Amino acid sequence: MTYCLGLLLDEGLVIIADTRTNAGVDNFSSYQKLHCIARADDREIFIASAGNLSASQAAVGMLTEGGLSPQLNEAGSMFEVAQLVGKSLRQANQELVEAVAPKIKGASCLLLGGRLGGGEPRLFLIYEEGNFIECKRDAPFLQIGETKYGRPILDRVMKRTTPLARAVKIGLLSFDSAMRSNLSVSRPLDMVVMPGNAAEPTLIKRIEDDDVYFNELSARWSELLGEATMVIPDPQFMAPTAREEPERVVRLTQPSQAAG
Amino acid sequence: MTYCLGLLLDEGLVIIADTRTNAGVDNFSSYQKLHCIARADDREIFIASAGNLSASQAAVGMLTEGGLSPQLNEAGSMFEVAQLVGKSLRQANQELVEAVAPKIKGASCLLLGGRLGGGEPRLFLIYEEGNFIECKRDAPFLQIGETKYGRPILDRVMKRTTPLARAVKIGLLSFDSAMRSNLSVSRPLDMVVMPGNAAEPTLIKRIEDDDVYFNELSARWSELLGEATMVIPDPQFMAPTAREEPERVVRLTQPSQAAG
Repeated sequence: MTYCLGLLLDEGLVIIADTRTNAGVDNFSSYQKLHCIARADDREIFIASAGNLSASQAAVGMLTEGGLSPQLNEAGSMFEVAQLVGKSLRQANQELVEAVAPKIKGASCLLLGGRLGGGEPRLFLIYEEGNFIECKRDAPFLQIGETKYGRPILDRVMKRTTPLARAVKIGLLSFDSAMRSNLSVSRPLDMVVMPGNAAEPTLIKRIEDDDVYFNELSARWSELLGEATMVIPDPQFMAPTAREEPERVVRLTQPSQAAG
Repeated sequence: MTYCLGLLLDEGLVIIADTRTNAGVDNFSSYQKLHCIARADDREIFIASAGNLSASQAAVGMLTEGGLSPQLNEAGSMFEVAQLVGKSLRQANQELVEAVAPKIKGASCLLLGGRLGGGEPRLFLIYEEGNFIECKRDAPFLQIGETKYGRPILDRVMKRTTPLARAVKIGLLSFDSAMRSNLSVSRPLDMVVMPGNAAEPTLIKRIEDDDVYFNELSARWSELLGEATMVIPDPQFMAPTAREEPERVVRLTQPSQAAG
């Protein structure tokens, strides 16, 4: 498993991916999942992958080393790019499934983000079968891989209007939650930050295992969560006086009403 | 799906279960998952279930309406209770699988908690096959069902030494995270709080859909998380000056190195 997160905000696009791969707990390694598949004056396109590594590498290979027609650099819109990426992913997954099923289950899926010309950044989720959805205004993020641990913080605080720097920070907190609870997600993290203003440069960054900012963010977040649980009052029904009151057992099945 | 959480703390035992059942998004209902299976002067025993509702109801029925030998009220220890519960669950799941597989997948698993006599409360997780593990000092909680969304808060702040009232509050926050991100977990919540001191009464409580404390807890938690994300400094690499520096692209695959 792995975890990849794409954020599409008023101020720009963010994609973050971890690098952990594993086939069982005694066979794990670090592989880059965030790839630049096109970078020229008129286009910057990135994909992040989750799932079977051979399938996602095959899809990237088809996209960047040829074999597809039309070529990636001929696509006239991000929608056409998504079609091409979907086509290559479907082919890679089909070949994988034919080769390894039913012994090994699983395929790869992708996040695709980027811009053509001076257009706004766009973000897509490419499913295993090659069909895709685009991130739209209602929900400012897309996730693939081990998505659940890192989702609560996004659901609560990530907005389309969140400033880019704060969104990166919240994205890293989402990864920290996933990494603390699940061994299949791990640093280093790779990140792309593409400002909405095409005149500003795209930032490409790796957060290493010993990254000081990330370590402090993680430790401080734990402290802040602990403090926040103190700020909220304890439930009144747990006060010693309340607990002496007659028990409210009517709601719970008694042995004679077991099928309730 | 559902979500059940058991906490075993120095001050006592807590079990919380939601009541949402669903078979597809157009067929959902509210069913009690937390059951009192024995309540007498010398024993108080509760189970919470996740998974197939017919299997968990069958297991509860076998335990409380007979059919098992020895009976639940003859068990001499919580370990023996766990053996009995495991036996009934295994039988219920086997009968279900024989009847419905391969059309329907899935079985039921359980949390079991309680005490015999003046003994300390104990907590077990009973797997689908009837084998089980007991909650021990290193990790003060067990979860079944839709566990991932509600886990980060537990991993960060739940300790064996957490006071009972605060633990209940953190447990409710864990449920709030699961409910915000997943439609298969929903109020009402059922709860049992069994103080470690056998002289104190066991609290049994239902948190309804319109529970004022829970609503405030949920709203306040969102505010506090938002504030916490403000307290942590933004990453320095996102400062405008830092973003003008030469890009660090060496780490990201370029089109000519696609298999990296």
